[in-house]
Amino acid sequence: MDKNLVQANERVDELYANDIKIIQSPEVFSFSLDAVLLAHFAKPYTKANGRIVDLCAGNGAVGLFLTAKTKAQINLVEIQPRLADMAQRSVKLNHLDEQVTVYNIDLKQTNDYLAKDSVDTVTCNPPYFADLPTSKKNPNQHLMLARHEITTTLKEVVAMTSGLLKMGGRFYLVHRPDRFLEIMDVLRAERLAPKRVQFVYPKAGREANMVLIEAIKDGKDGGLRFCEPLTVYDQEGNYQPLIKEILYGKG
Amino acid sequence: MDKNLVQANERVDELYANDIKIIQSPEVFSFSLDAVLLAHFAKPYTKANGRIVDLCAGNGAVGLFLTAKTKAQINLVEIQPRLADMAQRSVKLNHLDEQVTVYNIDLKQTNDYLAKDSVDTVTCNPPYFADLPTSKKNPNQHLMLARHEITTTLKEVVAMTSGLLKMGGRFYLVHRPDRFLEIMDVLRAERLAPKRVQFVYPKAGREANMVLIEAIKDGKDGGLRFCEPLTVYDQEGNYQPLIKEILYGKG
Repeated sequence: MDKNLVQANERVDELYANDIKIIQSPEVFSFSLDAVLLAHFAKPYTKANGRIVDLCAGNGAVGLFLTAKTKAQINLVEIQPRLADMAQRSVKLNHLDEQVTVYNIDLKQTNDYLAKDSVDTVTCNPPYFADLPTSKKNPNQHLMLARHEITTTLKEVVAMTSGLLKMGGRFYLVHRPDRFLEIMDVLRAERLAPKRVQFVYPKAGREANMVLIEAIKDGKDGGLRFCEPLTVYDQEGNYQPLIKEILYGKG
Repeated sequence: MDKNLVQANERVDELYANDIKIIQSPEVFSFSLDAVLLAHFAKPYTKANGRIVDLCAGNGAVGLFLTAKTKAQINLVEIQPRLADMAQRSVKLNHLDEQVTVYNIDLKQTNDYLAKDSVDTVTCNPPYFADLPTSKKNPNQHLMLARHEITTTLKEVVAMTSGLLKMGGRFYLVHRPDRFLEIMDVLRAERLAPKRVQFVYPKAGREANMVLIEAIKDGKDGGLRFCEPLTVYDQEGNYQPLIKEILYGKG
């Protein structure tokens, strides 16, 4: 491993299921189970002639995990310089420079770099919380921007996604269940037909705290499918077998 | 048991969890797990001064099961004379004449018998399938009407429900997941705010094939909750413990 790529106060976390190394830092933003499950849920375009865009890319975890599933070009869009820099160094650390490109830009500027109707798959792990005057925000600016809709909103992310995608292109989103209906409305208003949903539950007997959504640009209405539920922990607080397999691989 | 209440080609099924006896017949319509789970999911108004209406009541299973949870008056609305008659005899069989009333009427006529804005809780296990020219229908007329939107539709059921309910009254619906978004749209168009959803899966690794929905008349938008998933069978085809408990009671 090239030690020069990792700075003070950073560590390298590895997802053993696909050997990808991600530079992390408790100071700014760490990839979480959300990113891992989004990459697992997504069925990206697989061939080398395709293009995948990960919006709100953070330290690049989702896009880097996707390299295990596709030969397509992967473009990461992240507004925060500190996070985009970490993502860029993780790309190098994994020798993925030829497949993965990091754009340190505002999502609003994406079309200056990536043409409309040119993308096969978009993924996004966006800020979950609406920027309400009453909402408590983390005083750490990096975490605040990653969690709250300050630099972007659900509506903006979805509109940009719809513009980027080719007809029939697919969008994969992870979000909070309490915003599910709003998400469905925004997707449909932007020509994205919801097709497949998977709810994630922290443990048995608890309500869902995460939802994974697949939508198709200009897809037919109706026929929404709800996949097998994912439950993260067992009653002792250990990962359930399916989650363990996603994180660490089989056997 | 009063044998005279049960006719040839009928049998009496009992839900051991609450000792309710339901007259069934393979010729017309049998209550199913859908009805049991709807009654289990519902949180009906409980006091004797309240009114509960079960639309598309069939042989009365949902309404009869609810008697274990409430002292309120329960009104069953069923268009098919054969089914309404079975429901009426099941009411007698369980000595519930004072609490449960059967109306053998078209749902469209409900307001001739039950005033608008007068009901605390509405439940409904409606026909699941849209009446498309292409849809395969059961040649048995009783089953056809119970399963296909021929005498009523989702839109009509929801509009009637909203009219019947008081402000803050609750609606409990069981339906198919592939119509979930349509259901959400119709509910919201009729002043019913979706509040709680539970998906039912046939077994591990399979998609949901049933969904239970709670909505509140004039409830606030947002904050939809997705309850713990229910899985019906284990890999050997036996009921899962939670389903067994709902059907047969604890211990």
